[in-house]
Amino acid sequence: MNKRMVLYMLGKILMLESALLLLPFICGLIYNEDVSYCFVYTIVIAAAAGALFMLIGRPRNKAIFAKEGFAIVALTWILMSAIGALPFIFSGVITNYTDAFFETVSGFTTTGASVIANVETVPKSIHLWRSLTHWVGGMGVLVLVMAIVPNDTGRSMHIMRAEMPGPIIGKLVPKITTTAKILYLIYVFMTVLEILLLFAGGMPLYDSIFHSFGTAGTGGFGIKQDGLAGYSPYCQWVITVFMLLFGINFNIYYLILMRKLRSAFKSEEMWTYIGIVLVSTGIVTAYIYPIYDNVVDSLRYSAFQVASIISTTGFSTADFNLWPSAAKAVLLILMFVGACAGSTAGGFKVSRVIIIFKQIKANLRQMLHSRSVSSVKFEGKNVDIATVINVSSYLAIYCLCYIVVFAMISIIDNFSLETNISASAACFNNIGPGFDVVGPASNYSYYSVASTWILSAAMLLGRLEIMPIILLFAPSAWIKIKNIKKKRRVT
Amino acid sequence: MNKRMVLYMLGKILMLESALLLLPFICGLIYNEDVSYCFVYTIVIAAAAGALFMLIGRPRNKAIFAKEGFAIVALTWILMSAIGALPFIFSGVITNYTDAFFETVSGFTTTGASVIANVETVPKSIHLWRSLTHWVGGMGVLVLVMAIVPNDTGRSMHIMRAEMPGPIIGKLVPKITTTAKILYLIYVFMTVLEILLLFAGGMPLYDSIFHSFGTAGTGGFGIKQDGLAGYSPYCQWVITVFMLLFGINFNIYYLILMRKLRSAFKSEEMWTYIGIVLVSTGIVTAYIYPIYDNVVDSLRYSAFQVASIISTTGFSTADFNLWPSAAKAVLLILMFVGACAGSTAGGFKVSRVIIIFKQIKANLRQMLHSRSVSSVKFEGKNVDIATVINVSSYLAIYCLCYIVVFAMISIIDNFSLETNISASAACFNNIGPGFDVVGPASNYSYYSVASTWILSAAMLLGRLEIMPIILLFAPSAWIKIKNIKKKRRVT
Repeated sequence: MNKRMVLYMLGKILMLESALLLLPFICGLIYNEDVSYCFVYTIVIAAAAGALFMLIGRPRNKAIFAKEGFAIVALTWILMSAIGALPFIFSGVITNYTDAFFETVSGFTTTGASVIANVETVPKSIHLWRSLTHWVGGMGVLVLVMAIVPNDTGRSMHIMRAEMPGPIIGKLVPKITTTAKILYLIYVFMTVLEILLLFAGGMPLYDSIFHSFGTAGTGGFGIKQDGLAGYSPYCQWVITVFMLLFGINFNIYYLILMRKLRSAFKSEEMWTYIGIVLVSTGIVTAYIYPIYDNVVDSLRYSAFQVASIISTTGFSTADFNLWPSAAKAVLLILMFVGACAGSTAGGFKVSRVIIIFKQIKANLRQMLHSRSVSSVKFEGKNVDIATVINVSSYLAIYCLCYIVVFAMISIIDNFSLETNISASAACFNNIGPGFDVVGPASNYSYYSVASTWILSAAMLLGRLEIMPIILLFAPSAWIKIKNIKKKRRVT
Repeated sequence: MNKRMVLYMLGKILMLESALLLLPFICGLIYNEDVSYCFVYTIVIAAAAGALFMLIGRPRNKAIFAKEGFAIVALTWILMSAIGALPFIFSGVITNYTDAFFETVSGFTTTGASVIANVETVPKSIHLWRSLTHWVGGMGVLVLVMAIVPNDTGRSMHIMRAEMPGPIIGKLVPKITTTAKILYLIYVFMTVLEILLLFAGGMPLYDSIFHSFGTAGTGGFGIKQDGLAGYSPYCQWVITVFMLLFGINFNIYYLILMRKLRSAFKSEEMWTYIGIVLVSTGIVTAYIYPIYDNVVDSLRYSAFQVASIISTTGFSTADFNLWPSAAKAVLLILMFVGACAGSTAGGFKVSRVIIIFKQIKANLRQMLHSRSVSSVKFEGKNVDIATVINVSSYLAIYCLCYIVVFAMISIIDNFSLETNISASAACFNNIGPGFDVVGPASNYSYYSVASTWILSAAMLLGRLEIMPIILLFAPSAWIKIKNIKKKRRVT
């Protein structure tokens, strides 16, 4: 493990974070908020730590392999959250570090689960920091680094692969740094477009920026106690559409940019995703119609919530915790499905669901006609056996992680099954609100300290797709285990 | 597909069923019950149908391959349940066929979920039929056939493999029919032992037989409204121990019989199973102690319920639906874990859990040290890649089936999430009682007709480990799909 290089990269990340923190600081100055100083303290700490790491870690050799990639990703996210929690503490918005760390992790992992009881008392600069963590965490911290800092292509591949994994390991263009730039350009463009559309619809500029950052990262933090219920239907529909858009594979947008429209619109994953959204919206609308007594409203609330959950954003325009159980069951399943790979969304991912489904069919065919060799096709191409095994393996570790998180918080915090099942799901899949005690009208502050740490870990596990975090704890990643058995030469 | 052979085998099965129905008939005569005639009608129908099938299906060739094996298993279980439901209808104990079929499927699949509101009003002969379905379904209908009817060993292998699948495809001895005989001998011995121990403890003989049949098949039907709460602590402990015993791989008992004690007690699966039971009991005891205020009682209720759920029996000595959510969470997880392969229990199976766990570790090692080749060891032997893939594939189809069942019953019947989540789990894993509306103090009669059929299907899917049922619906299993493309000869 090239520890010096890892430390060096972490140092760079902290420098980036200190730069990012300037934005909420400036926001605080603009709005004349007392808490601006919190950001100054944090900037100084981040910059100092960053400089120190870069100094100590000045690498002798710059080799980064898979091992280093995973470690950098895992430690980056943990460290950025650890430092990023400080403004909450310094400002007093959150008074204990466990909760502040949870809130920041929730920000960067674009979960959007909050411990803040009344968001309307929070200063605007702190809110901006919250939504900024969403925006940066959505496309990826390290992808941002690669987009703006020149780096060796070979090394960057391992880091990028570790941060944006998934069954489709697409490089848009040969040079990885160019890929990172293109992704961020599309990302910025779409964010700005949403801001403009919301602002044009009457939403205050600050609110438009805040919610667009949250939509882009598919995050979910709110600035009003009733979420987005108080905004106009037009704004709600805009956000609905953009939540869905940010859940689509960014490869598609690149294809559209390159005018390869046919390829873009042939995407099996995208159409499956859209199909799931339509069917789910239909079912939920049917069930909530008796509550709102109005087809248009029911459709609006339903479409919004389905889009919000499947894209793992987590915004809400209604207290869906009060909806009929049938509607909640649909939402619960969507929490696990997730959106498309290569997007800012969480969950298991539609592409994996499709591959698993096809592999099941292939297996069944194999059972009946043992002489046939069944292959799995996805997006028009054959899926090699290694990918299929990867997806099956991911399903296994995904299930295990979810069950372990659920078991632990259930044993520690004796909340209802509905609460614990949905809290685990909503954190692990980076959605945000769940049901019952963690419903959209409530928050996560009721969990004990231990559970809060577990849920923070769950959010990181989900966003980084498990491996980087788990591998951080593998001793053999860090220490060379010497083989002490010597082979005797037989003479 | 050798349809004639399939029909012929089904005919034999129906003859067996008509013979089995004699037992409750005789019971009805002993207790002077009016409903005895129901069994006569059913016996006549079963025997007539059986004779007809055997006549029509008199096979030209006796070849049975995997395809036929799956079809025979699936159709056997469906047909036996279809006919076996008649006594309920004829006697008026259950008035509609949907519910009667559900109850019978619940019997044969050893689930133990019941639609009967007050079991204490049910005639003893009907009860005996209920528990008999458990006993026969536990070890397997076809295994019974092979134990008592001479058959070609080669053909029997496919049938037995289809009915008792799992990652450990063990033949105790080379001849499959001898294996079947040995399994049933051990099974009968343990059943009789339990009957004697219960009877010696003061439980009436009829009750001892009823509950032992249910324990042996890890079924769960009851004859008292309060389950087993009314019986002595001694009896409850006996049943606790036997529920656990019937959840252990029968290979172990064979090894003990052959005095290969060391091999028997080296079983990784068995010790893991015992470990899970101990840990779970500890946690549940700690949580229910405040309710009962007595360590010994809490331990007894806890151990009983943990054993009942993990062995997928489903008996209850307390209304665990009223227990703290933490305890219910543990029970919910155990519903999915299940007991050991090669036992009469349902669930995912401990051996599969172990293999998945080890494969995850091997994968992680692989990620860090790509040059190392990580193998998975289970029960001291290397697990070949085919088995590992089988287990991963099974996890995929298992998850899919569970989610589909849950989604369907949730959309059709708007019960609480807790109800629908647990009902799906309890039926699919062949446990019986769930939580809330389907708790141990309640029953499944509240579900609509459609959901009842879906849950019946879920029980069959679970007991037969999915494949046989799914393959029944594959067109290519039944029809030769002609390849109409002719290859042109290039001259």
